[in-house]
Amino acid sequence: MLEDLKKRVYEANMLLPKYGLVTFTWGNVSEIDREMGIFAIKPSGVDYDKLTPDDMVLMDLNGNKVEGNYNPSSDTATHLELYKAFEKIGGVVHTHSPWATSWAQAGRAIPCYGTTHADYIYGEVPCARCLTGEEFKQYERNTGLLIVECFRDRDYEAVPAVLCKNHGPFTWGKDGHEAVHNAVVLEEVAKMAARCEMINPQVQPAPQELQDKHYYRKHGANAYYGQGK
Amino acid sequence: MLEDLKKRVYEANMLLPKYGLVTFTWGNVSEIDREMGIFAIKPSGVDYDKLTPDDMVLMDLNGNKVEGNYNPSSDTATHLELYKAFEKIGGVVHTHSPWATSWAQAGRAIPCYGTTHADYIYGEVPCARCLTGEEFKQYERNTGLLIVECFRDRDYEAVPAVLCKNHGPFTWGKDGHEAVHNAVVLEEVAKMAARCEMINPQVQPAPQELQDKHYYRKHGANAYYGQGK
Amino acid sequence: MLEDLKKRVYEANMLLPKYGLVTFTWGNVSEIDREMGIFAIKPSGVDYDKLTPDDMVLMDLNGNKVEGNYNPSSDTATHLELYKAFEKIGGVVHTHSPWATSWAQAGRAIPCYGTTHADYIYGEVPCARCLTGEEFKQYERNTGLLIVECFRDRDYEAVPAVLCKNHGPFTWGKDGHEAVHNAVVLEEVAKMAARCEMINPQVQPAPQELQDKHYYRKHGANAYYGQGK
Amino acid sequence: MLEDLKKRVYEANMLLPKYGLVTFTWGNVSEIDREMGIFAIKPSGVDYDKLTPDDMVLMDLNGNKVEGNYNPSSDTATHLELYKAFEKIGGVVHTHSPWATSWAQAGRAIPCYGTTHADYIYGEVPCARCLTGEEFKQYERNTGLLIVECFRDRDYEAVPAVLCKNHGPFTWGKDGHEAVHNAVVLEEVAKMAARCEMINPQVQPAPQELQDKHYYRKHGANAYYGQGK
Repeated sequence: MLEDLKKRVYEANMLLPKYGLVTFTWGNVSEIDREMGIFAIKPSGVDYDKLTPDDMVLMDLNGNKVEGNYNPSSDTATHLELYKAFEKIGGVVHTHSPWATSWAQAGRAIPCYGTTHADYIYGEVPCARCLTGEEFKQYERNTGLLIVECFRDRDYEAVPAVLCKNHGPFTWGKDGHEAVHNAVVLEEVAKMAARCEMINPQVQPAPQELQDKHYYRKHGANAYYGQGK
Repeated sequence: MLEDLKKRVYEANMLLPKYGLVTFTWGNVSEIDREMGIFAIKPSGVDYDKLTPDDMVLMDLNGNKVEGNYNPSSDTATHLELYKAFEKIGGVVHTHSPWATSWAQAGRAIPCYGTTHADYIYGEVPCARCLTGEEFKQYERNTGLLIVECFRDRDYEAVPAVLCKNHGPFTWGKDGHEAVHNAVVLEEVAKMAARCEMINPQVQPAPQELQDKHYYRKHGANAYYGQGK
Repeated sequence: MLEDLKKRVYEANMLLPKYGLVTFTWGNVSEIDREMGIFAIKPSGVDYDKLTPDDMVLMDLNGNKVEGNYNPSSDTATHLELYKAFEKIGGVVHTHSPWATSWAQAGRAIPCYGTTHADYIYGEVPCARCLTGEEFKQYERNTGLLIVECFRDRDYEAVPAVLCKNHGPFTWGKDGHEAVHNAVVLEEVAKMAARCEMINPQVQPAPQELQDKHYYRKHGANAYYGQGK
Repeated sequence: MLEDLKKRVYEANMLLPKYGLVTFTWGNVSEIDREMGIFAIKPSGVDYDKLTPDDMVLMDLNGNKVEGNYNPSSDTATHLELYKAFEKIGGVVHTHSPWATSWAQAGRAIPCYGTTHADYIYGEVPCARCLTGEEFKQYERNTGLLIVECFRDRDYEAVPAVLCKNHGPFTWGKDGHEAVHNAVVLEEVAKMAARCEMINPQVQPAPQELQDKHYYRKHGANAYYGQGK
């Protein structure tokens, strides 16, 4: 069932090594069919060069496996909480891409220093705190809940990325491909922000009006980037 | 019309991914036919691996589309102002290449630390200030005007590159290929200048006479690099 | 003899250039047949693109060459001491991979800053001191003994990597392939730890409970990452 | 004439882009036939992907072109002075490889922080001062003389590399291939030394006895690395 979904999720997963975002199996992409309430996700710990569309695992929003020969990604419970809380998203990505992960390990939000960032992400990329104590018992689920908590006062459509302290990034989008696109953007933005601070330790975030201008150049009713609708 | 121009501009655009200067569609090259007063430019937001020469958009110097199935690059108005003000240039490039963009985000001009820089760029690569207030209304046009303002006391032929604060670099040259060549040079120079400051935080710019010697080794009547005329 | 072992060791050696861990011949992999008490190792100073499985050199645990047309790697005596002291390991890798070597040159252990590290290595990657005085006479053997000394109070199965001060890293695993896998992990971890400290000079190691959780997610009786047994 | 020499020099030049040491035409290799007193060198400003063995230019030690359709590299006079002063070398390389050039721009010698460096270069890589005043008139020749001056109290066989302040590196060896090999080593060593100082700003050079041990492991009468004579 859902052959198209599995194929799309397979292809989106294969973009991770293409864009240099993963080493070994350190990443996963999922995409949801909102009508069915089922999402497809990469199996856990299977090499990218051995993956096939049929290896994708189908899960429902209660965390039950609907179909699949493999165990789903160990991060499945995090994806699930994001789908439940962020109702308009259709795809989720987790990687250990090196620059974004370095910021996550550093425990810092990524400030918006320029238009590369502002074109895709409105304001800083937040850094969710580390889990603690009892939260570790349901590690992956609580990681998802912590991200949701972190976006209580943020617009998850305007900020399609988060860092989890001491761990790494999650990104999302309208489907798996857009979530991967945002993962690539995040890695570029993380790289340039770190170097920017190295070049000028006193650097300040980009002016708010620049951030507004660039974000709304690509998003919302007055967007004029690209070929339109 | 202008099939040769469109082909050259297409080829120059394809050099950007070849040299690792662009992620996704974050860059564009244009080239002008000065007799016709028409320039060809990459369409907005079209993937590099789907581009064809026929996709290039022809624009006149009043900002009217002369030919093309697509919208021109969203940065077209910036290219246009540069062609109007810098009468001897024939090509313009904009990218978000990571090192040059990191300097632009840091808001710093790139000092000339050595001969790699001095062979192509005479003195520092300036950093134009960020737009402000009303200037955001005609964002791309005003970016061009700000660059022109920045070169009021500079020789745009001797300094074929600029950084726009919180944004990224523009380069130019006698045609699109030379503008791309200068974009590659700028990225190398930006990388080495940042690392150079990391290795020696007290580093000073190269002596003026070294800068003179290297620049005039390749430029002007007494140039002796390469195979001559 | 031991054709399968030589083939596996050859293949594991060829992974080093594939993963970008070696320049020229700066690396070597060995694997031991514990029943025979014989290990196969790369010959010394032979280019990777000229290697064949038959070039692997067979050594016994007394340091005698059992078979082979070439001299064994100059680091053979180090591998040998590790096999003698760490009885459960089956493969050893030495490289000069750039980030891990930079930490080794800096003389610092790599703190555990996040889950990428904690998934494979429990606690910091220790840095063994430099040899001194008389120890230089049996340089490679004493390098091995120093590593063993460094693990007197550490679990070599939980920490499958070490840095040798002013030199570079050694990693190990249940066979040559796992040892290479750990060499790749170490290089990623070393890169991200250095960048992490650049982004936040006051960064602290990841909380102990996070380190515990991630390590035991992949190791031991309650592991649940991957496809199980 | 000297077809073999030209072929070898061509091949050595083609290794520069293979190892990522050059952008555009920013590098050149020469090799000398000591009996003939003639060296072959890359032509000036010719693209690597258009080079052929026949394009190599033959020069004598008085700086006269003996054969060739092109102008020789603009750095020819530097190569020539090195061949005259360093009588046992057979090949010379100049590049703008990014890490070595960053140290040259920073005006700092590269300390020996570890065995990767000590295996090939005995002690620090010196940094020759910048030219000044009248010296600029015979720029390339004086660059060579300055390098020779810098080695008055150094062994050019034990230290086959130098940085020229505000410019970039030169390396040499018994032939063109070995000179390229040393250029690759230098770039790796420069990269790791910079990162090493970033990881530990108080780092000290490797102990002298380690430097001795590693250098003499590969050089001199008691060398035991590789497959011997």
